[in-house]
Amino acid sequence: MDSLQTALIWAVPVLGVIGVVTAFFLARTVLARDTGTPEMQKIGRAIFEGATAYLRRQYQTIGLFAFVAAILLTAIISGFSGFSQGWHTGVAFLIGAFMSGISGFIGMFVAVQANQRTASAARRSLNEALTVALRAGAVSGLLVVSLSLLGVLGIFYIFGGASDPARAPFLIIGYAFGASFVALFAQLGGGIYTKAADVGADLVGKVEAGLPEDDPRNPAVIADLVGDNVGDCAGRGADLFESTAAENIGAMILGVALFEVSKTAANPAGNVGWIFFPLIVLAFGLLASIVGVLMVNPRGTINDPMSVLNRGFYVTAGLSVIFMVFVSSVMIPNGKGLFAICGLLGIAMSLVFVYITQYYTSGTYYPVRQIAEASKTGPATNIISGLAIGFETTGMPAVTISVVLFAAYKLGEHTGVASGGIFGTAVATMGMLMGAGYILAMDSFGPITDNAGGIVEMSDQPESVRDVTDALDSAGNTTKALTKGYAVGSAALAAFLLFSAYLDEVGNLRLTKAKDVITSPTGQTIWNVAHEVNLGKVEVFIGGFLGAMLIFLFSSFAIRAVGRAASGMINEVRRQWRENPGILEGTVPPDYAACVDISVRAALREMVLPGLLAVAVPVIVGVLLKSEAAAGMLMVGTMVGVLMANVLNNGGGAWDNAKKFIEAGNLKDDQGNTLRKGSEAHAAAVVGDTVGDPFKDTAGPSLHVLIKLLATITLVLAPLFVR
Amino acid sequence: MDSLQTALIWAVPVLGVIGVVTAFFLARTVLARDTGTPEMQKIGRAIFEGATAYLRRQYQTIGLFAFVAAILLTAIISGFSGFSQGWHTGVAFLIGAFMSGISGFIGMFVAVQANQRTASAARRSLNEALTVALRAGAVSGLLVVSLSLLGVLGIFYIFGGASDPARAPFLIIGYAFGASFVALFAQLGGGIYTKAADVGADLVGKVEAGLPEDDPRNPAVIADLVGDNVGDCAGRGADLFESTAAENIGAMILGVALFEVSKTAANPAGNVGWIFFPLIVLAFGLLASIVGVLMVNPRGTINDPMSVLNRGFYVTAGLSVIFMVFVSSVMIPNGKGLFAICGLLGIAMSLVFVYITQYYTSGTYYPVRQIAEASKTGPATNIISGLAIGFETTGMPAVTISVVLFAAYKLGEHTGVASGGIFGTAVATMGMLMGAGYILAMDSFGPITDNAGGIVEMSDQPESVRDVTDALDSAGNTTKALTKGYAVGSAALAAFLLFSAYLDEVGNLRLTKAKDVITSPTGQTIWNVAHEVNLGKVEVFIGGFLGAMLIFLFSSFAIRAVGRAASGMINEVRRQWRENPGILEGTVPPDYAACVDISVRAALREMVLPGLLAVAVPVIVGVLLKSEAAAGMLMVGTMVGVLMANVLNNGGGAWDNAKKFIEAGNLKDDQGNTLRKGSEAHAAAVVGDTVGDPFKDTAGPSLHVLIKLLATITLVLAPLFVR
Repeated sequence: MDSLQTALIWAVPVLGVIGVVTAFFLARTVLARDTGTPEMQKIGRAIFEGATAYLRRQYQTIGLFAFVAAILLTAIISGFSGFSQGWHTGVAFLIGAFMSGISGFIGMFVAVQANQRTASAARRSLNEALTVALRAGAVSGLLVVSLSLLGVLGIFYIFGGASDPARAPFLIIGYAFGASFVALFAQLGGGIYTKAADVGADLVGKVEAGLPEDDPRNPAVIADLVGDNVGDCAGRGADLFESTAAENIGAMILGVALFEVSKTAANPAGNVGWIFFPLIVLAFGLLASIVGVLMVNPRGTINDPMSVLNRGFYVTAGLSVIFMVFVSSVMIPNGKGLFAICGLLGIAMSLVFVYITQYYTSGTYYPVRQIAEASKTGPATNIISGLAIGFETTGMPAVTISVVLFAAYKLGEHTGVASGGIFGTAVATMGMLMGAGYILAMDSFGPITDNAGGIVEMSDQPESVRDVTDALDSAGNTTKALTKGYAVGSAALAAFLLFSAYLDEVGNLRLTKAKDVITSPTGQTIWNVAHEVNLGKVEVFIGGFLGAMLIFLFSSFAIRAVGRAASGMINEVRRQWRENPGILEGTVPPDYAACVDISVRAALREMVLPGLLAVAVPVIVGVLLKSEAAAGMLMVGTMVGVLMANVLNNGGGAWDNAKKFIEAGNLKDDQGNTLRKGSEAHAAAVVGDTVGDPFKDTAGPSLHVLIKLLATITLVLAPLFVR
Repeated sequence: MDSLQTALIWAVPVLGVIGVVTAFFLARTVLARDTGTPEMQKIGRAIFEGATAYLRRQYQTIGLFAFVAAILLTAIISGFSGFSQGWHTGVAFLIGAFMSGISGFIGMFVAVQANQRTASAARRSLNEALTVALRAGAVSGLLVVSLSLLGVLGIFYIFGGASDPARAPFLIIGYAFGASFVALFAQLGGGIYTKAADVGADLVGKVEAGLPEDDPRNPAVIADLVGDNVGDCAGRGADLFESTAAENIGAMILGVALFEVSKTAANPAGNVGWIFFPLIVLAFGLLASIVGVLMVNPRGTINDPMSVLNRGFYVTAGLSVIFMVFVSSVMIPNGKGLFAICGLLGIAMSLVFVYITQYYTSGTYYPVRQIAEASKTGPATNIISGLAIGFETTGMPAVTISVVLFAAYKLGEHTGVASGGIFGTAVATMGMLMGAGYILAMDSFGPITDNAGGIVEMSDQPESVRDVTDALDSAGNTTKALTKGYAVGSAALAAFLLFSAYLDEVGNLRLTKAKDVITSPTGQTIWNVAHEVNLGKVEVFIGGFLGAMLIFLFSSFAIRAVGRAASGMINEVRRQWRENPGILEGTVPPDYAACVDISVRAALREMVLPGLLAVAVPVIVGVLLKSEAAAGMLMVGTMVGVLMANVLNNGGGAWDNAKKFIEAGNLKDDQGNTLRKGSEAHAAAVVGDTVGDPFKDTAGPSLHVLIKLLATITLVLAPLFVR
């Protein structure tokens, strides 16, 4: 290992700490700002209390689940692979779960505090409000990536990575599983909470009572505002924490195979760069994201907040290109430069996904306009059109993913390095993930500005202030959609890498168990033979079929959970209005806390069934039908999950923006009259928007996590499936 | 071959001819009945003219497409596999296409004639009307199965099956492709026609003008009635024609492998029973269906038409059990009786699917009630609830299919016969398909009674007559849903058999090309090595991913096509009412023919894009990524297609029946008042029903055909993909 390589490995903890320090610095500058009028402070406090009440109970429950899971995991793995692997896995699981929880918790804490400060800044200027909201979002974004990196690196060394770098990656897979486990419940719970409150508040407030959005007479309005934070901030934070963790560890496991092959007579130690490469690339991606965030400090008049945010992303992407070329040339020099191109493909894919998502969910283009047009003939045609668009949105992403995957694989093969093809896809995934910090900052920007708008509305600010928060909120809707596209795209790209890691693990287990060792007749290595997931075998076909079914069933449960929770909310709001008519007259404040409590309890109750399903199906398939069937389930489940997540996210986003398109006065009838709020067409568009809510904010994002949970759970439980 | 075997082979043409004769006999008894009042005759004539106008233009276009496809096919196959294989395939394709068209055409002709005769019989008794409708439906059902059998047998012998039974099945695969090609366009065109008319008529007639269903003042009403015939009768007929043809030929191809293995020193001729077995089983299934149909001749008072129809199905299933045991013991005696059990599993699965479909789409059970409940809070919750149910309906069918597939495979393996596992799944598929004739008769019963109801309504018959047709119509809705469940279940079961046939074909091609012949190190035969569809290879993964995407994209195109065509219909109806106010007053008859013409043209135009997509994607994947990737596309596409078809069919059926549940006065509000037509809840349920229309009658049924088209197109074009 030359000294430059050593220096780059050292850069990982250094950059990780820089990320944490930057996050704290940004948090301090946000918290130091003024908290607005007394009215704003009062509302802000209510949101803060609601959010902490939820998080305390939510993480208590998740913590308990995680603790039970860790014990079971330790026992199972100890039984099959010995106590050493067992306790390593259990401890790694708990650390992963804890780190994921912490990063969600802190990011959300700052985001909630930033709501009222953004609202207050909006009284002064758009520029200031934008900067506050983005920096508050960046606290979460940078923290998630930093903690993920530091966690993986730390546990790698604690588990003996210095002395045996080839074994440590297999010991730390529990970390990724712990992260996905927490992420699944965080995303499910947050998604159910936020949409129970939102759908409930809309149906009873807007549709029944004719109140405007965020009206203080609606008892569910605080729960709705809290929901934006716990669903979008905490949920997506956990989602991307586990993405970076799982994909990092998966890539390291693939790196082990290349590390082993790199040991030659001339270089008996081999090139450990293969194993460290993913960590280092992500650490430099973190640096690129930090620069991107700090560059956004707009001066002068802003016409479109989105273009300011995009500029920061371009900076991040540009720096990522340079860092990718640099890191790959140092750490994996025998790739003929082709691996760097794989990385650039991944960065390019993150940009392409941003465009595709915008095309399908922005009012500027054909799809949203078409849904708005269809609203003229009522809710039925609005729904039909939106679902057709949702299904259609699978096309371009699937083709893009296929092209990138194929190109990265073939380029990787072309390097001549053994297993280079799969490593090429891993490098592309890492390239795509380099901007995760910035993307996540933009994502948290969404709920912060959304809530700032709510606070401005509820505290009776002048129209000009509302205009500022409206502009930011509109950009926030776009950034939220983009993040989902990004998350699902990276999940798809990572899929191939993650199940290759699983197959490596299975091959590894077969070798160490020396049971049914397969020797290839053509002299190929064991890895390639183990890399078989033959759908022609009936068990594997059934595994794949059940994997596809799991996606549909899980989506059903997640959507249904929102429906049930929302009807509880509707009943509570109706009860308050019935028992206290003063609330609707505006003379008596409603009992906000009761509605918050309903959302909290509904989220905790309703997340259990889909969560259990997600954990149980892979275990049952793996135990009954064995490891190859589990791989079939993983692969087909991933394909269908990626497509379905696209349908749900983009369909929901398109419905939402079709409604906004009409509200902005862009739809005309046959006589040329503008159709606005209050028209039949708008009422139809509201129906579509409501249907899309649980799609895009509960089921869709939970599917991202489910896909990766499938990968980590099969990876960890592989010893159980190989017998 | 012993004499009993010879006798059973002879039974195939005999039973096929008996099927055709019975169909003609039934057609004569139906046509001999009275055609009702002059008013009824007038409406019946209008429906007949509309239907023939559609069919003439539709089949002209499809014929042209088929002719072009046949020429291309002949050229391509000749180039890759020699002119002999080429012209055989092309001719087989045309014959398959022709037979499929013929059976759809004749069945529909009789069904249309039966409408007014059923309406007339309803004036006398429920028993008589039920008998007329079922027998008219049976004309189509029996004809489809008979022609499919006679066609396969005929072409098998024409192409030298007597002298070389092992080669002929490979020559006739074009027949199955021709059948699926026509079925795709027939189902798409019919589905678009019927739903353009139905959705258009409902939205403008019921929702805008407040007219009742089937009101003569609605210009689209005749187009709507015509649509039931061309969508449900002709479409589903073509669907099941190609199911029996494709699955028959697929099973025969599998039989070839077992036939070759059965050649021993003691018996050098081998047991040709393996190849003929599927044909004979289906022929006896036809006999069972004939008996089932003729047994339905109710006397005395009928409480529930469904129980009468079910009784006929139980007779068919019971006879199928006996025939299955008998035929398998004679034709494939060395299966230790285990293959017979596989067949019984298939028959049992057809019953299980009937129950599952009833559970999810009948108002008696939880799912439909839940959607009706959700309608109380408006269209948004109705849609959310319906989609959640739709997604949920993938669970039980997927588990059932998995269990049957696994059990049949393992039982087949247990026989000790080489390739016995896959043949076991083939026998299960044949078992399930034995009742196809009866199921299809029940299916056509649906649109016939639906139309009879329309004629009764339009010809101003007394309430008591309407009660008779309402009872029949309600049963018809159930039978239509059952047929779809049955069609998709058999498609799923057949999937494994069809791609095994494809893999056999690929293995065969590799052998004859003597190019990259793979020899197994463990001494296994070439078949098993060729049976590899390894998702661990990047091409195969991408093939699978694109296969899954195809299902979503195709569904999107099919749904969108209905939306576009319906809006054309809405504009035409509005134009007629605007230009001639006398229509709505009931003083001037509307221009029915103009609406029929719009549906005809829309169906022809809109079927092209989804049809092209369905043909182009597998060809592109196969040519670019080669045969194993095509197999991946086929398998994953099938899995997702089966699940999505369930979502669309059952979701649509549940929405439809939730509306009927409310109309029947079964929904109460919190105060205990019944919510009926005119309530907000009913309006919400109408939205759900309208959304479900293109799901269950266009996209869902077209997916059945798409799945099998994927199988037949890859089977036929395999020479193109193996290079």
